[in-house]
Amino acid sequence: MIIVGERINTSNKRIARAVEERDAAFIAKVARKQARAAADYIDVNAGTFLEREADCLCWMVETVQAEVDVPLCLDSTSPDALACAVECHRGEPMINSISLEEDRLRGLIPVIKSRPCKVVALCMFRDSMPTSAEERMAAGVELVGRLEEAGVERGRIYLDPLVQPVSVDFRSVDHVLGALGGLRERVMGIGTICGLSNVSFGLPRRRLINRCFLSLCMAQGLSAAILDPTDGQLMATLLASEALLGSDEYCQAFIEAHLAGRLKPEV
Amino acid sequence: MIIVGERINTSNKRIARAVEERDAAFIAKVARKQARAAADYIDVNAGTFLEREADCLCWMVETVQAEVDVPLCLDSTSPDALACAVECHRGEPMINSISLEEDRLRGLIPVIKSRPCKVVALCMFRDSMPTSAEERMAAGVELVGRLEEAGVERGRIYLDPLVQPVSVDFRSVDHVLGALGGLRERVMGIGTICGLSNVSFGLPRRRLINRCFLSLCMAQGLSAAILDPTDGQLMATLLASEALLGSDEYCQAFIEAHLAGRLKPEV
Repeated sequence: MIIVGERINTSNKRIARAVEERDAAFIAKVARKQARAAADYIDVNAGTFLEREADCLCWMVETVQAEVDVPLCLDSTSPDALACAVECHRGEPMINSISLEEDRLRGLIPVIKSRPCKVVALCMFRDSMPTSAEERMAAGVELVGRLEEAGVERGRIYLDPLVQPVSVDFRSVDHVLGALGGLRERVMGIGTICGLSNVSFGLPRRRLINRCFLSLCMAQGLSAAILDPTDGQLMATLLASEALLGSDEYCQAFIEAHLAGRLKPEV
Repeated sequence: MIIVGERINTSNKRIARAVEERDAAFIAKVARKQARAAADYIDVNAGTFLEREADCLCWMVETVQAEVDVPLCLDSTSPDALACAVECHRGEPMINSISLEEDRLRGLIPVIKSRPCKVVALCMFRDSMPTSAEERMAAGVELVGRLEEAGVERGRIYLDPLVQPVSVDFRSVDHVLGALGGLRERVMGIGTICGLSNVSFGLPRRRLINRCFLSLCMAQGLSAAILDPTDGQLMATLLASEALLGSDEYCQAFIEAHLAGRLKPEV
């Protein structure tokens, strides 16, 4: 399972202030904490800065990479901001995200093809959020086709079925799980990715909901998750689920994490 | 989800002592705690008493029913002990369990037909533990056929795919999940049941493993679980999983449990 640390996002007020004030020490600290907590990528998102997004995102990339050796997940809806962020990123980033929207496709394909990277591809049609598993799968299949046509190899693509709050639609998790399982059958060799925390929006006990959701997605073969790696209960759930689902032979990683004191203790 | 409280089992030394000493107050206390924690059935198992099993089991049934109004899950491999326990049980018990073993089938079918009750049916062939999802499904289908032939309605049957420790075989959960999902498709209207705690045998952090396993089984439509209802984290996981899986519309039960302080708080 590829872990993408979600904490450096300017939708969080404390992060927004740090970016506004160019408080590199604060951003570096949040990056370091996530890297120590086993993040494989660190997400950076400056979407709230609107027309200053590209500048802010590049500063965030440089600030994080000055502190940790982990590659970044460059998170924006703007092809221009992503093109700038990719330019100042060392190594192989994850580009988050592309969709079937023509501007985004046209703007990002040259960026993706210009260097080794992974890309998150959203399972939605041009103008609206998907409302079923079937619609997510259809959009995912079409998007993989468009990317492959343009020369992007399937092994670099992570399909995101777009998690909606279960408080808004009680069938939304069912749709996401159906799409995750279905896409891995229909598109051999494809990766899948979810942002976990949207699922619990509007509900109490969000961390509890998020970690149950993680287990459920893992059972459908999820290959990457955008989550808070500093949430000890969540990471313990991840390791336990890997042991249960047979991807941790002899439960070796789970037992090692236990012996090393890395499993958050019971209450 | 039907919750069967697992705590009154003489494989636990403290329970065995209480049964040996006919310490009704202790057994009543364990029963009351489970009933308060929302158990729909309370399991009673005196298997360790061997030739005294039937006597002990009947005493346990009377002791628990003197204390709480919850029906019991009568848990034994012996048709004779089950027949005695059913006799002294008021109301509709769950009989746990029957299998394709001829003595068990012949001994129990008249007991099951003699009164309203549910029955747990083990997905194994006569002489050995199943080693795949397919074998579990084949045994389950055959057993349902035998029970229906004998006049037991499908709606009373709960198939148990037999959970093995993941520490012994890292694919065992995969087999159980495959069998749970498959049986519900192949045998319309059937119930399924699992004992959770066997899955974590031999591993550290058993309660963490058990609750992740519960979510995974629920995603495959599990209709009943034998578990410790006094484990607050487990019950919180159960409620969160029901909300996620769409069986708790508008997340109403989850939110109510939160407001009533019934969700064990985060660390």
